[in-house]
Amino acid sequence: MKEGTNQLLTVIKGFLATKDEKHLKQFLLDMHSVDIAEVISNITDKSDKQYLLAQLDSEQAALVLNELDAEVVADLLQDVSSERVSEILDEMSFDDAADFLGELSENDKEKFLDLFEDQDAEDVQELMDYREDTAGGIMTTEYVAIPDSITAAKAIEVLRETAPDAETVYYVYVINLKNQLVGVISLRELIIASPDSIIIDIMRKNVMSVNVNEDQEDVARLVAKYDFLAVPVVDDKQHLIGIITVDDVIDVIHEEATEDLYRMAGTYEAEEDETLARFSTAFKSRLPWLLITMMGGMLSGQVLKNFSEQLNTVVALAFFIPLLIGMGGNVGTQSSTVTVRGIATGQINTTTVLKTVLRESMVGISLGTVMGAIVALAAYFWQGSIQLGLVVGLTMFANMVTAATMGTVVPLLLKKVGVDPATASAPFITTTIDILGLIIYATLATLLLGIL
Amino acid sequence: MKEGTNQLLTVIKGFLATKDEKHLKQFLLDMHSVDIAEVISNITDKSDKQYLLAQLDSEQAALVLNELDAEVVADLLQDVSSERVSEILDEMSFDDAADFLGELSENDKEKFLDLFEDQDAEDVQELMDYREDTAGGIMTTEYVAIPDSITAAKAIEVLRETAPDAETVYYVYVINLKNQLVGVISLRELIIASPDSIIIDIMRKNVMSVNVNEDQEDVARLVAKYDFLAVPVVDDKQHLIGIITVDDVIDVIHEEATEDLYRMAGTYEAEEDETLARFSTAFKSRLPWLLITMMGGMLSGQVLKNFSEQLNTVVALAFFIPLLIGMGGNVGTQSSTVTVRGIATGQINTTTVLKTVLRESMVGISLGTVMGAIVALAAYFWQGSIQLGLVVGLTMFANMVTAATMGTVVPLLLKKVGVDPATASAPFITTTIDILGLIIYATLATLLLGIL
Repeated sequence: MKEGTNQLLTVIKGFLATKDEKHLKQFLLDMHSVDIAEVISNITDKSDKQYLLAQLDSEQAALVLNELDAEVVADLLQDVSSERVSEILDEMSFDDAADFLGELSENDKEKFLDLFEDQDAEDVQELMDYREDTAGGIMTTEYVAIPDSITAAKAIEVLRETAPDAETVYYVYVINLKNQLVGVISLRELIIASPDSIIIDIMRKNVMSVNVNEDQEDVARLVAKYDFLAVPVVDDKQHLIGIITVDDVIDVIHEEATEDLYRMAGTYEAEEDETLARFSTAFKSRLPWLLITMMGGMLSGQVLKNFSEQLNTVVALAFFIPLLIGMGGNVGTQSSTVTVRGIATGQINTTTVLKTVLRESMVGISLGTVMGAIVALAAYFWQGSIQLGLVVGLTMFANMVTAATMGTVVPLLLKKVGVDPATASAPFITTTIDILGLIIYATLATLLLGIL
Repeated sequence: MKEGTNQLLTVIKGFLATKDEKHLKQFLLDMHSVDIAEVISNITDKSDKQYLLAQLDSEQAALVLNELDAEVVADLLQDVSSERVSEILDEMSFDDAADFLGELSENDKEKFLDLFEDQDAEDVQELMDYREDTAGGIMTTEYVAIPDSITAAKAIEVLRETAPDAETVYYVYVINLKNQLVGVISLRELIIASPDSIIIDIMRKNVMSVNVNEDQEDVARLVAKYDFLAVPVVDDKQHLIGIITVDDVIDVIHEEATEDLYRMAGTYEAEEDETLARFSTAFKSRLPWLLITMMGGMLSGQVLKNFSEQLNTVVALAFFIPLLIGMGGNVGTQSSTVTVRGIATGQINTTTVLKTVLRESMVGISLGTVMGAIVALAAYFWQGSIQLGLVVGLTMFANMVTAATMGTVVPLLLKKVGVDPATASAPFITTTIDILGLIIYATLATLLLGIL
């Protein structure tokens, strides 16, 4: 893919150098808007960017701008006539326009909003008012709906007149006189139906919908579960107010997977360009977890300080600290990852929660038994002390059972009290496990080595 | 969602108790196949499951079975007449049938394959031969293609005759006489075109396709990038052999996100039901990383053993081991997570790789400076030794720079040599960082405390 973009970039740069407007226009016409956007992002000269944009018709320009960052777009459109900007904005789908305007400063927002037609401006404003992570925030108001009382022939006529984009006619929604969603019919079903049949008689009446305030993750789960291409959005009174299409759902899935992964690692850069985010953002987003880990490390140190008499007597006890800490953290991370992911994909729910906890505890006990035995033997042969082997082996066992159980129960409890379980991320759980593990180690060593 | 299924389950159980076949059938007709499958999974009695299945027509039965585990399906179909099984299999899409058969034992596979019509059996067998994680493994051979030389009117006639499912007509692909993909046209474009126009004149000639051997992750990235509903699959000679639809792409995205997350945590349960996987699978999948971590822990212990003279003299050195290890591992995990995710989403590529390494190293240096200073001061006030503060602070700094750099460079190098970077997972990187960190600690302590 990447090489393709590089080739395109080279060709375009050639056109820009020779100012061969005719061939450039022809070439751009055959390009996908996503690729044009990528080329524009990779060009450094602003006037070159604007020149490219000027070669596009307003429909293609709208698609291209939709792929670029809002700030870049606002900058590119600065010197463009408001007539042309208005034309381009009219070609944007309302949800894209709302997303674009939503990222701008209040000042720019007003300026661009004024360039929409009155009714459109209202629709876009309404979309901006929904919370970004709800169904309302990702829906578009450009859908196809027909009344339930007309004939199939009339419906096809209505569709031809409203001339929707091919992409948005996955399903044709059916509404009653109160604008309430009552059914759905596919374009193909409409075409093969007898022209005189009434929609209400040929539509499917069982139509799944989502409430406008529903969380975008739940919407994504629904679409993924039923393999929908689009899902209608209704308000509390069942009025049809929008649709959510599968491409937006894919974005949600990507976004949520990235967020979960980052949270598990204790870093919070959830913005689109996180990998390339400015270094200061990266620095700030990671510092909090590191400070918490540091507090945990200090606490661990305090545990060891109280334990210094034993450490002074049997310095070999210190050799096993990295091992015990590493293994406990490892098991805790594994358990919490499986649990967080299970909650995200919906595989862990009220009916399977007990099974999950039981299974993870069993895994902890089994892993603890095996690893405890191995480590005890290794410690014995390495240091030549049975008591030391026993202490290390028993600590390993206790540590792994604690880690597996905590790694499972903490995310579940957080979910129960309404906190995103991914926030019960590895750093927090492992730090807690470290401290508990050292307390267990110190206690067992005192008890068992005290009777040396 | 969940409550919905529970309600459905209650109603169905009522029907089963009263054997009210007529109303049960009506009720099932209105249910979504995904929900019926969920109800069947939640019923324990096998004869009840079979009774429910018997109430469905073969089309619905195929959709329902498609949602269930292959083994469950094989079990359910055991006592069903081969005529009925044959009917149901005929209704399955070829890619679903291939997935189903692929999970069965050789014996069962042969048995079911015999129940397909000859041509269908061949198609399904062909699909089974593609590697599961390639374009061929997720494509279906049921697509709509028309020759480039016919008229729009004739094309619509062809479409009516082949009577495809509404869901599969996202795009109509155009082929030449050699069955090579040459264009694409939407159903809507066909309908509004003048009936006499020739397809080659009205189709879009720029059609993106994927090679049958392309990695499923790359296919998913392409579909997500361009917001496609389906993408055509071609062989090396550009012959059209299948399509991949967006619902299968969503499954790939879910699967890959889960796999990456699991690999980062050193657990490998990539099967669909991983969260509820049998405990033995969980045990086995996690043991390898734990053993590697153990070896790392032992190595760390060996480093400390060589360091025991200093530990014996200044036992306070041991107090900081959990802190230093925890922080290094933490930063390493953060950096590798950002890098692995950036590679997966395509944000890190040849043009941005240097920027990424530079940024992460800068983050490491800055975090190291801040945290090193804090820890040095804390150590000084806590233990009252300037030298000790200096050793701990400098180790922290060196540790964090190493961790951030390793966490970024190791996944990138693995990607370069063709290994899945998610395998450069947290346990491996943190273990290495632990050992390096302790060596730095021991060296600095020897140098700086030696001149006490």
